[in-house]
Order: sequence, then C-alpha cells, then structure tokens
Amino acid sequence: MALKYVGEITDPIHKNIKFTTVEKEIIDTSIFQRLRRIRQLAGAYLVYPGALHSRFEHSLGSMFLAGMAGQTLFDKGYFTDIDLIQHLRLAALLHDVGHGPFSHLFEEILKDSKNYSHENFGERIILETKISDIIKRNGYSPDTVSSLSFGKHNSGYLNEVISGGLSVDLMDYLPRDSYFSGTEYGKVDYFRIINSLEVASSKVLGINKSALYSYESMLISRYQMFKSVYFHKTVRSGEVMILHSMKHLNRSLHLTDFDSLEDFFALHDEMVLELLCNFPASKSRPMDTFAVKLARDYKSRNLLKCIYEYFSLSNQRFEKERDSKQSRRLPDRAIDFEKQIHLIQSIIGSHQDAGEPVFLDISRAPSIPLAPKKEEVTSIMIINKEAEYEKSFDQLPLINVITGYLDMIRVYTTKEKRNFFKSLLKDFENQNF
Amino acid sequence: MALKYVGEITDPIHKNIKFTTVEKEIIDTSIFQRLRRIRQLAGAYLVYPGALHSRFEHSLGSMFLAGMAGQTLFDKGYFTDIDLIQHLRLAALLHDVGHGPFSHLFEEILKDSKNYSHENFGERIILETKISDIIKRNGYSPDTVSSLSFGKHNSGYLNEVISGGLSVDLMDYLPRDSYFSGTEYGKVDYFRIINSLEVASSKVLGINKSALYSYESMLISRYQMFKSVYFHKTVRSGEVMILHSMKHLNRSLHLTDFDSLEDFFALHDEMVLELLCNFPASKSRPMDTFAVKLARDYKSRNLLKCIYEYFSLSNQRFEKERDSKQSRRLPDRAIDFEKQIHLIQSIIGSHQDAGEPVFLDISRAPSIPLAPKKEEVTSIMIINKEAEYEKSFDQLPLINVITGYLDMIRVYTTKEKRNFFKSLLKDFENQNF
Amino acid sequence: MALKYVGEITDPIHKNIKFTTVEKEIIDTSIFQRLRRIRQLAGAYLVYPGALHSRFEHSLGSMFLAGMAGQTLFDKGYFTDIDLIQHLRLAALLHDVGHGPFSHLFEEILKDSKNYSHENFGERIILETKISDIIKRNGYSPDTVSSLSFGKHNSGYLNEVISGGLSVDLMDYLPRDSYFSGTEYGKVDYFRIINSLEVASSKVLGINKSALYSYESMLISRYQMFKSVYFHKTVRSGEVMILHSMKHLNRSLHLTDFDSLEDFFALHDEMVLELLCNFPASKSRPMDTFAVKLARDYKSRNLLKCIYEYFSLSNQRFEKERDSKQSRRLPDRAIDFEKQIHLIQSIIGSHQDAGEPVFLDISRAPSIPLAPKKEEVTSIMIINKEAEYEKSFDQLPLINVITGYLDMIRVYTTKEKRNFFKSLLKDFENQNF
Amino acid sequence: MALKYVGEITDPIHKNIKFTTVEKEIIDTSIFQRLRRIRQLAGAYLVYPGALHSRFEHSLGSMFLAGMAGQTLFDKGYFTDIDLIQHLRLAALLHDVGHGPFSHLFEEILKDSKNYSHENFGERIILETKISDIIKRNGYSPDTVSSLSFGKHNSGYLNEVISGGLSVDLMDYLPRDSYFSGTEYGKVDYFRIINSLEVASSKVLGINKSALYSYESMLISRYQMFKSVYFHKTVRSGEVMILHSMKHLNRSLHLTDFDSLEDFFALHDEMVLELLCNFPASKSRPMDTFAVKLARDYKSRNLLKCIYEYFSLSNQRFEKERDSKQSRRLPDRAIDFEKQIHLIQSIIGSHQDAGEPVFLDISRAPSIPLAPKKEEVTSIMIINKEAEYEKSFDQLPLINVITGYLDMIRVYTTKEKRNFFKSLLKDFENQNF
Repeated sequence: MALKYVGEITDPIHKNIKFTTVEKEIIDTSIFQRLRRIRQLAGAYLVYPGALHSRFEHSLGSMFLAGMAGQTLFDKGYFTDIDLIQHLRLAALLHDVGHGPFSHLFEEILKDSKNYSHENFGERIILETKISDIIKRNGYSPDTVSSLSFGKHNSGYLNEVISGGLSVDLMDYLPRDSYFSGTEYGKVDYFRIINSLEVASSKVLGINKSALYSYESMLISRYQMFKSVYFHKTVRSGEVMILHSMKHLNRSLHLTDFDSLEDFFALHDEMVLELLCNFPASKSRPMDTFAVKLARDYKSRNLLKCIYEYFSLSNQRFEKERDSKQSRRLPDRAIDFEKQIHLIQSIIGSHQDAGEPVFLDISRAPSIPLAPKKEEVTSIMIINKEAEYEKSFDQLPLINVITGYLDMIRVYTTKEKRNFFKSLLKDFENQNF
Repeated sequence: MALKYVGEITDPIHKNIKFTTVEKEIIDTSIFQRLRRIRQLAGAYLVYPGALHSRFEHSLGSMFLAGMAGQTLFDKGYFTDIDLIQHLRLAALLHDVGHGPFSHLFEEILKDSKNYSHENFGERIILETKISDIIKRNGYSPDTVSSLSFGKHNSGYLNEVISGGLSVDLMDYLPRDSYFSGTEYGKVDYFRIINSLEVASSKVLGINKSALYSYESMLISRYQMFKSVYFHKTVRSGEVMILHSMKHLNRSLHLTDFDSLEDFFALHDEMVLELLCNFPASKSRPMDTFAVKLARDYKSRNLLKCIYEYFSLSNQRFEKERDSKQSRRLPDRAIDFEKQIHLIQSIIGSHQDAGEPVFLDISRAPSIPLAPKKEEVTSIMIINKEAEYEKSFDQLPLINVITGYLDMIRVYTTKEKRNFFKSLLKDFENQNF
Repeated sequence: MALKYVGEITDPIHKNIKFTTVEKEIIDTSIFQRLRRIRQLAGAYLVYPGALHSRFEHSLGSMFLAGMAGQTLFDKGYFTDIDLIQHLRLAALLHDVGHGPFSHLFEEILKDSKNYSHENFGERIILETKISDIIKRNGYSPDTVSSLSFGKHNSGYLNEVISGGLSVDLMDYLPRDSYFSGTEYGKVDYFRIINSLEVASSKVLGINKSALYSYESMLISRYQMFKSVYFHKTVRSGEVMILHSMKHLNRSLHLTDFDSLEDFFALHDEMVLELLCNFPASKSRPMDTFAVKLARDYKSRNLLKCIYEYFSLSNQRFEKERDSKQSRRLPDRAIDFEKQIHLIQSIIGSHQDAGEPVFLDISRAPSIPLAPKKEEVTSIMIINKEAEYEKSFDQLPLINVITGYLDMIRVYTTKEKRNFFKSLLKDFENQNF
Repeated sequence: MALKYVGEITDPIHKNIKFTTVEKEIIDTSIFQRLRRIRQLAGAYLVYPGALHSRFEHSLGSMFLAGMAGQTLFDKGYFTDIDLIQHLRLAALLHDVGHGPFSHLFEEILKDSKNYSHENFGERIILETKISDIIKRNGYSPDTVSSLSFGKHNSGYLNEVISGGLSVDLMDYLPRDSYFSGTEYGKVDYFRIINSLEVASSKVLGINKSALYSYESMLISRYQMFKSVYFHKTVRSGEVMILHSMKHLNRSLHLTDFDSLEDFFALHDEMVLELLCNFPASKSRPMDTFAVKLARDYKSRNLLKCIYEYFSLSNQRFEKERDSKQSRRLPDRAIDFEKQIHLIQSIIGSHQDAGEPVFLDISRAPSIPLAPKKEEVTSIMIINKEAEYEKSFDQLPLINVITGYLDMIRVYTTKEKRNFFKSLLKDFENQNF
C-alpha cells in the first residue's frame, strides 16, 4: 500500500519529516524516545558547542531519505513491491536504535566484555520488543526491517541504501553534523544524489553520471568532516577520557551486565556521566579515584593533552606501488602504520601498566565508507540509460587521494605528565594533517 | 586596553567567536561549563527535536554581539572608556550564569520557595565566586559586570545593550532558537541593527533610521517565535509536567534548599530529571507517585493534553479604546483576561484541590521585550546625524499590532481525564491564534 | 499520462528544476529565450546590484511550483485528470511570456497606446505562435494552458494556483527577488504552504490550518519586500525615468506599433535602452533631448531626486470605521488618498505642461494579491479533515494591518529643480513608511 | 586617515558593503557604472540561468574584502601607513574596470589585434581619466592604486591581496559565482582566511595554520567551480560562438579600433550582441552570414555541439616523475597535451580553412591561481607566532592532486556537421572529467 502520512516533525536539515502510523507508534515508544538522550557525536560538543544533536533526529532524517531513495528506485522500476519503501523507512529509522550511551564508546566496551555491537542490540530490539509488535500489527515484517537495517537483505543494493558509501545514513549525518557543529564542510547535495540512484545489472547500487560531481563533493565533505570534527584532537581527548572512565568503572558499576533490554534502555549519556562522576571511589583504590576524576574533568572540560600525533595513508594501492619502486611519491607517509603503533606501545606500555595516566588513541576510518558487508569499496557504478560502467576511484583523482587516508595514532596524558611523556616520545616522527 | 583575543570557538550562528584571556578563564570554570547542561529552551525539543542547544552557546553568542555593540558605541563616541567593551562582553557572557535546571521552570520554584530569581544567583556568582577573582585578577571590575548584567549600571543605555528590546540577548536567542529548532521565523539582521545603534540625548538606546525595517522585522520574528515555539501548545505541555513534578517532589528532594552555591551548581536538566524519575514514591503517597509518573511521562514524551486554550490581546492602548466606545474593533478579544483566569480557576480549582491531574498554564509575555528596569517599552528612538525623534509603536502599524499580544491561558490534563474536563469547560470560549 | 522528465536546470531557489519534452521544446524557442533579457524587476538593480535576474528564471520556478501544487491537489483527490498537472506547469511557465521590455513599464505604455496588457500578448503567444504548435503536437491543449495562465479556467481554484494570494507566481517571486537583491525579507516556506493546499467546497483554494503561520509569514514578507524593494524610492526613480523616456520617444521610435508579434519579440531591456540613449534628438525638439538625457542618466545611474512622499492606508474596513466614529484609530493616515493626488497634481500640473522635469509617481499595490479575477481578497479558507471555515483577515491581526497598506504618491525632479519644487510642496504633509 | 563611510550597498554575498567618499565618486562615474552591463561570467547563464551577475558587484565585493584584508595586515603591524587600506580598497574596486564586453572573450580579440589586455585598459583608466582626478582630489595616489591593481607594487605581498591564490578577487568570485549560478560548490570561509592572513619574512603573503583547512577547502571549491561552471561544456560552447562571431565581424565593425577610451566605454555585452545579430551580412560573404548566424543562435541558445573532449593533468611535478620511471601512476593522463592539440588541429585544420563550422576550444587554467607576477604557485606559507614554514602543495595531498589539473581540448561544430566530425575524430581518445 502507498504511504499515508499522519503527521510531521520539523527538522533543520530536511524541513518537514512526515511519518506514517507505524512510524508514529515506533517513535512514540520510550525505546525510541531514548535516542534523544544519546548524542550523535559523543564528544564533539566539547569543541563545537552546538553539536548537541542526538541519534533521535538522525534516525528521523535517515528515514526521510530512505523514503526518497526507495521511491526513486521504485519509480525507476528496480523493484515492484511498494511495501519495500515502508520497510526501507523503518530500517533507516531503526538502524541506530541499538546504540548505547556515548554511542561508539559504549559499543567498544560492550565488544570487549560481551562481543556485542549496536547492530546486535538493534536486531534484538526490532525482533523481540514492543517495536516488533508494532511493525507486525501494522502489516509489515520485523524480519525484513531487521535484515535491511543491518546489511542482511537478499537484495544487496537495498542494504546499500541503509549503510555504505551511497547510504541515507551518510547523507543524513554529514549535513546534520556540519549544521549543528557550525562547520561549513558537510554540505551534501543529497537530493541530487538520491534522485540519481540506479541499480547495476550486478545488483549493486550506483548513480547516474549527472550526479558524479555531487558524489565526489560528498566524499570530499566526509574527508573534511573527519579531519575537522570526528577526529579532532580535542574531541578525541574527551572521548578517550569517557571511554577509559567507563571501561574502568564498569567493573563496579556493571553497566554492561544487564539481565534484560529494559536495563539497557535506562542508560543514556548524561545519566551514565552522573554515575561515573558520583561513583564512591575509596582512597585505597587509586585507579577508581582516577577514573572518577577523568569523568569529572570531562564534565567540566578539563581535558587531557595530546602529546603525540601520527597520521597515515594506508591506501593499499599506494602501498603496493611504493613497494615496487625506488623513488616513492609520498615517502614520509610510507612508514608502516602497524609498526608505528607497536613502537609507541612499546614505549608507553610499561607506564600504562604502572597505572600512569597515558592513553593511546588509535582511530582507523575508511575514508570511503564500507559497503554493508564491511568490504572495502574502491569504485562507483555509473549507470545511464545508454550504458553502465564502473569507475574505480583511481580514475577520480580527488577521491583516489582521500581513499583510506584516515588512520591515526595519538597519545594523551594529563597536564602534569605532559612534559614527561613528550620527552619520552620526542624522537618519534610527529606528523599531522 | 584594547581587546586581545587568545582563541576562538566555532558557532553556527556567528561562525567564529573569539575570546580574551579573562573570558577564557571564566569559560573554563566548571561554574560556566555547567551551562552546557541547561537547555536554552526547556521543553522545545519535544516538538522541535533539534532544539537541544544550551545556555552555554547562547552566552557565548551574547558576548560576541555585546562586543560588537560596545565597539559601535565606542567608535561613535558615546563613551570613551575602552574597557567598557570588555565589561559589556563579560556582562553578556554571564547574564544567564545564574540559571538553574530547566531555566525558567526552576526559577519559578525558587521564586515560590525563596523569592529568588536567576538574576540573584547571577549576581552572587559574579561577586562571590572564583569568577569574581578571575575578573579582578585580569584588571576588571566584578561590580561593573554585575551591574551591567542585571540592569543596574548608571548609564541606562548600557544596560539596554544587555537586556531589553535592542539587546544582544534578544538578538542572539532569536536566530539561535530558530536555527536549532528548524523554524524559518527567527532571522534577524543583527549585524545591521547593531551597526545602527545610537544613544539619544536622553541616554536611551536607539537606532539609526536606516535600520528601522530590520528592527521591525526582528520584532515580527519575535512574535512568530513566540507563537510557533516558545508558547507552542505541546512545548508548554512538557514544561507544565516538569514544573509540577519538580514543584511537588522538591518538598522531599530539597532541590532549592542548598547550603552553598556549590550545591546549586550540581543541578542540571538531565540530572534533575533522573532524580525525579527515580524518586522512590511510596504507594501511600499517591501525589508523589503521580509526580514521578509526570517526570517519567515527560522523559518518554507521553505528554498531557491541552483541552482549553485562550489567548488575549492585553494591549493597553486597545483596552483603553475599547472602554471609550461602543463599536469595538476586536470584540472577540476584548474580554478581560484576568476575569477569564478567574472563571477557569473557579471551575477546575476544586478538582485540583482534590488531587486530580488538571493544570492551568498561564503565560504572559510582553511581545516587546521590557527595558532592563522592567518598564514596558512603547516606542523606539530614531537617532540620525540630522535629528533625533521618538517613534511610538502606534506609528509603526505592524509593531503596534503585536504589542502586548501574547497572553494566554491553557488547561492540560491526562488522556484519561481529557473528556471529563473538556466537557466541564465546553461552555467557555476556546480561542487560539 | 504521468510526467516524464527529460532534463533539468540548476536554479538557486529550487535547486534542480526538471522539465518534460513539451516544456523543453517551449523553453528552446527564441520566443521563450527572450525572457532572459527582460529583468524580473525593471529598476531594482539600481539599488540592489544583484537583482539582475530575469523573467526566464522566474517562469521556470513558477512551473516547478505549479507542478508541486498540481501534484498535491491531484494526490488529495481534488481532480482526477492527471494531464492537468502538465497544463498547470505550462500555464505557469508561460504566464509571463507576454511581458515586454522593462516588464510593467512597457505594459503601461501599451495600455495607454493600445489598451493592451501582457496578458493579451500572452494569450496570443500561447494560441497563435509556434508555442501553440508545440503544445498541440505533444498532446496538450493551448486553450487550457491559456485559460489557466490568465484566470479564465472553469475551475476557479486552478486559476488561483497560477495567480493570486496562494499562487506559485507569488511563491516564486518573493524568495527569488529577495535572494537576488540580497534582502532578508522574502523567505517563504512555499514547500509547506503548497503541501497544505486544499480546495473548499465552494471551489476556492485554501490551506490546511497547519500552514497558517507560514501563510501569515509569506504575507508579511510580501509587505516587507514592497517597502524595501518594489516601492523603494530610488528604484522607483529609475523606473519613472525609463517610463517617461520610453513614453515620449515611442512617438518617434514606434516601439508599440508592430505589425507582427515577431517585431515585439525583438524588444528587450538593454536593446530598448540603447535605442533610447542613441535616439538622434534634434536641438529644436527639447523634449526629445530631455527624454534621451533621461535614458542616458538612467544608464549611468544619475537618478532623479524624490522631493515629496506620501503613503496611505486605503484599507476599506478601516476607512468605513473611521467614518462612523469620532475618535479615529489612525487619524494621520486617514486623509483621502485621491484628494491628495488631486492636490499635488494641481500644484505641479502647470509645470509639467510647461515641459518642466517634474514627475508624479503613484503606486497602488493591494498588499494582499488579488484573486485571478482581480477581486480583492479579504479572507483565507482553512480546510481541514474535520471541517472547513473561512478566516477573514481581520481575525488575523498582523495580516489585517497590512491589508491594503501600500498606496503611495511621490514627486521626482532633477537635481537642478530640486529646491524649487521642494519649496513648492513644502506645505504638504510629507509622510513615509 | 581612518576610513569614513558615507553610505552602503546591499549585496547578497557580503550583506552591506560600505563605501567612502572617494569610492562613492568613482562608483558614480559612468565608466564604473558600465560594469553593470558586463557579466562576470560571459556565457555561464546559458547553463545556470541565474548567473547574470556583473563585474560591478564583483568589484564592490572585492573592495569590501580588500578592506578587511588591509585592516587585518595593518592591525598585525605588517604596515603602518593606514592610507594603504584605502589604496587597497580602490585597487580591488578598479582591478576589473578595464574589462570589455564578454570579459575575457573581448580581451582575447584585443590581444590578437592590439596586444592589449584588460590590465592595460585598467591602468589607463586609473591614470588618465576622470577616475584619476577623483583619486587625486580625495588625497590618494592613482599610481599606487594602479600598481596594486596590477601586481606592480613594491610590497609584493600587497599585490597578492589583489590577485593570486590568497586574493580578494578569488575570495569574492568563488562564492559569488556559486551563489548566482546556484551550485553548491563555491562556499569559501573567506572571513576566516582573511583574518588569518600574515606576511612571511620573505615578504610573501601567507596564512596562520588555523586557517589551513579553510584554505584547502577554498582550493577544492575552485577546482569544482572550474569543472562544473567555468569549463562546462555548454558554457564554453556559447563562448566559442560569441568569440568567433565577434572575431570575424570585428573586421567590419571595428569594435577594437577606437580612437579614445570613450568609444571603448560604449561597449557592453548586450549592445555588442545586438551589433553582431543585426550586422547586414551580404549573401556574397557567407563567412559574415555565418558569423551573424552564430550570434543569433547564441542569443536564442541554439548552441554548437561538442563532439570531442580531452582533459589533461599537466602538473609539472607529475610529468617529471613520469619521465623518470617505468610504471606510471596515471598513464592515461600522461599523453602530451601539446601533442594532442597538434594532432586534433592537423585533422580539423583543413576543414577550418575551407570555412567549415568546426571550432577548437583550448582552455588552460592553472588550478591554483597564479601569483600576481604570473609565476606558478606551488606552496603556501604558514606563519604562526611561534614559527613560519612553507608547506609545498605535495604535502597537502588533496591540493597536490588538483594542481595544474585543468587543461582541456574541445571540438565544437553545428548540429548538421556533428556526425561528420565525430567520425573524423572517432579514433582519438575522448576523455572527460
């Protein structure tokens, strides 16, 4: 059945986001309302004070774009089951519903302690809770929603609508994060890109040639957002602090040991922060005391200092090239990233073991978002009326350069220990963007 | 001494907000960082999900505009002590530092229980805490900052820079609230208005004629923001809930009974919300149970319903006119607002006394912001090189109409009681915008 | 048949404007391309240098919005003939195709000399030229297009889509004129208004209540655009000059005496301006010489000076009220506008007859755009699922005030004669916005 | 003396551009007003209909930014003569005053026939006309203005403020061209870049590190604007047509043979276009007839078709690398650009000689704007309080890639000859962006 909207929500990015009955019922659950209290970018507001936006708005925005993408593909005849549009919207609405406090930071702890990701929670929420009932009662399939949400649908190109390099996830978060943080970098002509979506004969999502510049622009935007927001030195400092505090105090607070999903639903950014700040650390346990201090310092923005930075081009094509020739194009970036991590760790490891406040922050983002199945993407399908062809990124000079660019190593410590560790690492190449 | 900037913060409204040493030191205190956790608009995010912005950004933005206004007045020769620019910036930075959780809602409780306003706290913070030391140590005067912040400076026009109808407070919050909520209504050409600021010979702040349209536009924006955001039926519903819950549970939680300012500084929106939601209400105290339920329902956006609405033009000029003539221009708005409140209260009062969930929400906003001394404003000074004159609002037709427009009465109740109270009030004129 | 797009044009207001085959063929004619050389606002660029935009872009934008409006009304079931959407788009695309050089200025001359309006030309172009053939060949009806374009279609509400207070004409030109002139006043949430369009049982176009604020905002925008752009004193000065020059030299240049439409199509702003500037005026005909001088002065922006200004509230309701009571609400605006014109004309008339350079500029704009049949509009239909009702403008306080506000009288003369005429008119009330 | 503003102009890019007396007098001359009739982008409006903006607005905008840059450098102590700020503003205001109709297209003809550039005219206008008098009368130096305008001032870094990779020219035209064309690509944070300007000890203009991302973004914007606007296939088609028509008919119309600058001042885009379209070509001179047809076809947007496209990376560093190694990074771009031109010319040359309508369009833009002395730029100076250092573009991966990217060859012909020439060139590599 065609979508019937029953209301709308004002959104700074997409103006008016309309919703259907099944969407309204899901949005109205406390499970979903919870996303209002989980910030989209855990620590970015420490540098960009406006970046207080939450997963709630992002989920609505993704739903909006998923509807647009679904309608485009339906109109172009790539699928005929009109209900898939509603399923796509629901999948986008719910793709982040499994996120915990501080989003990826909590996920990191969960993975360590439980080998659990936000996708695992997401699946359970879609299939096992009240939300499952709502979906079913309205005539849709929780299984379809869940499979689309997490990259397991049979039609691979539909998975790509939800996550990956042409996904509504990306097309919502870039302009949204940019808008709220106040940077100019995240402008995305998502309207044009989505209107240009096509499906290749190999069942892979692609675009019409007319949107190639817009696609290129979007990837440059993403690269710039990584440099200026997501991987910002000070943003990461705050995240390192909350991660360590949460990881350490989790042993006592048992944040990740819940009996039911209900316990999980109670957790959100500010609530967990209060728990950490108010943990009654006894003097006999200095590590606890320090973890509490980290949380309190985070809260009042008294942040750790970065004393070492290293960025790497891990672009595979480049690496291979480098091996095969004498004169290297980018010799200063050619040092093995793994080796560098190892080196740094060998220096600071003993200090960490001795409980000293020094933290290694390693971030690896594929600059080009992975396909839903987590395979690296190295090309874009161009699909026109006349013909379809594949353009590998090394044919798109700008994109080629930013492929795989964004790996980094940073070392953080307290103000007091700053000079000590700085001198310890002074012989290491200190390289930044 | 001229301002020397030592850093800058990215802001979506003003792009880059630079700060001086004294400002940096104040911003870095936990007293000021606390404002990050007090939303600018307590409940607006329930209708406009993006409106999560805090008093922190607004304070920075006001400081930015205060510097611009100060520089303009200094350049035009209205004052010669260049340090007043820094004092104005500090006054704007700190004018909201006394706000508690949920801003005006907490203030309402404070006023009831302690006869305390956020200005009282603000003064104490500026004069008695670490912030006072920072100001002094950097060579400025806490007394001057405090007097400018709260409308007590000798030069009345400088008070007007901070609050009132031409204030940086207004010129920051309108575009900011509009930006984050995603409405189109709050566009303000503050750049032009501030550049046009002049001081009348009567020492009142005015504008150059060239900015008269921009001023008119700003007041229309304010009117539209009141209608669509600040007084939105559903926004007010959330605020009524949190107000009642906080007011009731305050008796047990003693939120407003603190020994020191430190206790006050611990409070913020989400922290207080968690306190309310987790209050251990015993079954024997149904009012407590209901107050907890209100907080929890607020948190999951399960809001009270509005069953009665009444808006009034309380414009004094109109009222006077009405008295003196037979044929009334706006007869349907002419009923006495006070009488209406009294009538409604006489109906629902007994139900309230019996503990039934019915709430009266009375909001009165002067549509034209009051001058710092809380006197009503009814004119704008136009000051040109050639001459200065005063334009009363009834010479500016649009402004005249929106003067004093925004008084309202609403009655809220639960879903269960909706029909009961609706029928109880069915004979009353139910009028809205 | 459903619309099939064959291409798109980038537009700063609507981003991508798609077009169908019939639209492409019309746009590609030299008749339509001609609109690129007729500015949307004849003289506004003299004050707002960016306002060089043409009727070409406005026509495309109107087409875009007409499609959106048509689709909305079709989706809501108000009509079932899907081809009406294409007809509406063509009507909007062609509603300005009959405009001549300097738009309304040429029209004024045409009306004087031929009693011809741009609508008359428009009809002839749609019905008698190549454009008629294109429409027919593609399976559509020139008659239907023409009747929709010029307010003669049987379904009155469809005429209102093209012109009037809820028309795509208005919704395109307000934001467009604002964008190119660089004023902040013309923001219109046309997306929301168009999505809210409904048809009353009386077959009148209306809106859903949810868009009432947006509608109000649009009317305020229009009022502000009139004050700051369309009726700007200096803008009108340029227009008075070109009007007079064109009117006078038309006797020799015979601009309005063409045998065929082809001759008319040759005319455009800059071409006519060159004709006027280069007219070989003999010294024996000083009036010719002066007309040429006016054109040349216009070209180099050496403009006439305004020495008298008078604005009037001609609001009928107010006028009636005033008559019936002693104490008048706005006494200073109550003087009869006609009487004022008469007075001024009696003073300057003899000087005009003597060939002196003094010009009377009388502009009367209904602040609320007239319905297609040129009847005044005084109310807006609100049409909801539950009920429909009519809201007269005097129930909408802001709109009420701006209704009929914008009548004005101005007197312009040369720098040399400025003082002379100023003193001549010094006893007259000189009143402005 | 400090600048004293006497008025302001509304501009969509910079909002309010204030001007001083000397500026007002220059702007008011017909020499300067003439720039209103010379479009900034000769043919871009054929693809982006909104791109009708003129050199007039761009000149004002450049003046505005030059003042901001001058003030920044003055405040930072790089120069102490405050009058240089006014000279810089005048230089920016007048840097384009020597442009003729269709800007660079007319310049191309002038260079062929007279070896004259717009800079030559600019110098003469600043030094020999009424504008010189105005500058002198107001106490400034035409020589200084002229030398700054055209890269001949002793202080090289001041020349760079007016033209080159950090110039106000670039920082005005990128956002302006983007705004009016409606593309999203030209966003430039010029405010931040200009505020970050510094002068290296080598007297070269540089930036503070904090603006490095903004600088990078600006260069990416420029690259995208070249691809999507300046070098757009269809934009160039129109320009090829007008260039050829003007070049050919110039022999009869003698556009470039003027006795005085006054004759030159009479020329503007639409006026020359009318001359070309109305040239009385006799049938005995088919080349004239064709040149007239080209102008008329241009006017009605009946454009030549592109049948061959070739783009090249002429980056010198890459080229050198390529020579020295076997395995080439970008082999498909490595073919010699000159050789390619030669090849194409050898094929179509005889057809051109025989008067057939086939045109070669070769465009070479340094993707990184040249320094004022037309030397290639390959690095950016980073100047901080602590230290200054030079960052060569190959250390900035994205910038490195776009350096020198934008050389291209295109072949255009008529619809009729399209297939013939297409098959003639079918064996040549046809490569595009």
